[in-house]
Amino acid sequence: MKKGRGLLIVLSGPSGVGKGTVRKELFSQPDTNYEYSISMTTRNPREGEVDGKDYFFKKREEFEQLIREGRLLEHAEYVGNYYGTPLDYVNETLDAGRDVFLEIEVVGAAKVREKMPDGVFIFLAPPNLSELEQRLIGRGTESDEVIRNRINKAKDELEMMHLYDYVVENDEVGRACDRINAIITAEHCRRTRVEERYKLMLEGNDPQ
Amino acid sequence: MKKGRGLLIVLSGPSGVGKGTVRKELFSQPDTNYEYSISMTTRNPREGEVDGKDYFFKKREEFEQLIREGRLLEHAEYVGNYYGTPLDYVNETLDAGRDVFLEIEVVGAAKVREKMPDGVFIFLAPPNLSELEQRLIGRGTESDEVIRNRINKAKDELEMMHLYDYVVENDEVGRACDRINAIITAEHCRRTRVEERYKLMLEGNDPQ
Repeated sequence: MKKGRGLLIVLSGPSGVGKGTVRKELFSQPDTNYEYSISMTTRNPREGEVDGKDYFFKKREEFEQLIREGRLLEHAEYVGNYYGTPLDYVNETLDAGRDVFLEIEVVGAAKVREKMPDGVFIFLAPPNLSELEQRLIGRGTESDEVIRNRINKAKDELEMMHLYDYVVENDEVGRACDRINAIITAEHCRRTRVEERYKLMLEGNDPQ
Repeated sequence: MKKGRGLLIVLSGPSGVGKGTVRKELFSQPDTNYEYSISMTTRNPREGEVDGKDYFFKKREEFEQLIREGRLLEHAEYVGNYYGTPLDYVNETLDAGRDVFLEIEVVGAAKVREKMPDGVFIFLAPPNLSELEQRLIGRGTESDEVIRNRINKAKDELEMMHLYDYVVENDEVGRACDRINAIITAEHCRRTRVEERYKLMLEGNDPQ
C-alpha cells in the first residue's frame, strides 16, 4: 500500500535517563527505518560533535529569527542556550511518508504534543519501577529516608508520564530499543491509521 | 515489576484470511509468552484433532448448560454447531498475570469487545489493501467487474475493521506474526497500563 504520512515519534524522559544512548543505539541498527530529526542549538559544539550530524549549531541571532518566523516545532532555553526542532525538516519528511524520530526534553515534548497530537509519544523511564517495588517490599537494608526519596522521585515521574502514549523502562539499552521498535511497528498497524489510508484509496473509486 | 493483570489478545478477521495458520505459527515459536485459549465446540473432531488441544469437544446438552450458566465469554452457532470461549479459563489466566490469546470469528470478537473493552483487538486482513491499490491504479488488465467486486469486498472489510485496535495484513505468515508480537510488546508499554500498576504500588506507600 502506498504510504500515508509518516509517523512522528517522540522519545523523551527525565534528564539522565539515557535518551541519547538509546537514540544512538537505535540509529546504529542497520534496519532502522526512520529519520532522526537533528536538533538546533546555540551552545558551542563539544569535542567530537559535528554540525549537521549531532546538532545544527546556530548563532543566537539566527535562532531568534527562526523563532520569530515560526520555523521551530518547539524550542527551549537551558543554561543560557537555545535548543529547538526545525519544523520544515519534520513536515517535509512526514509528507514524504517517512517516520521522523525526535529525542527531546520533557518540556519540548509537551509543546510538540500540543501541535502534533497524533504523534507517538514515548517516555523513557529509569528502571526504578522494578527496583522501587523490590525496595518497597524490601529486605530491610534501606533507610527510611532513601525509601522516601525514591517514592517521591517515582511520584514526580508519574506526573511527567501523563502526556505520553507509552512508557519504556530503560533497564538495558538493547531491550529498550526492542520495545521502541515494537511500538513503531504496532503504531503502523493501528486501525485508525490504516483505515484512513484505506478510505482515501476507496474514495474516488466508488463502484456505484 | 510485579505483573498486573494479563492482556486479553483477540485475533479475528474475515473467514479464509488465515487466522488459524497465523495462530499456529505464533504458538510454534519458542519464546511465545502468552496462553492460547482453546475454544469449545459441539462439532465432531476432524482427523488429527485432539480434545483439549485443538478444541474442547462437548455434547450439545453440555454446551447449552454452560451457556445457561453464563460460563462462556462468547459463543455462536455455525452450520448447526456451537463454538465458544470458556470464561473461567480466560479470567483465571489473566488474574495470574498471563496474557491470553483468542482466535475467533468476527461475530464472537464483537461480543468479547463488549465484555472486555480493554482487550487488544487485532484484525487480520487479507493482503488486498496493497493489492487493491495496485489494481485500482492498474495495468488495465482487469475487467470492470473484477475491480468492482474488489472494491465492494474492501468496503465490507473496512466495515468489519471498525471495532478493532489494530489491522495486520496477512501478506506473509512470518511477517504477520512479527507484527502481532510487536503489538503485544507495545501494549505492555502503554502508559495507561503501566501508570495504573505504578499508582497501585505507590498507594499503600505514601511517604507523608
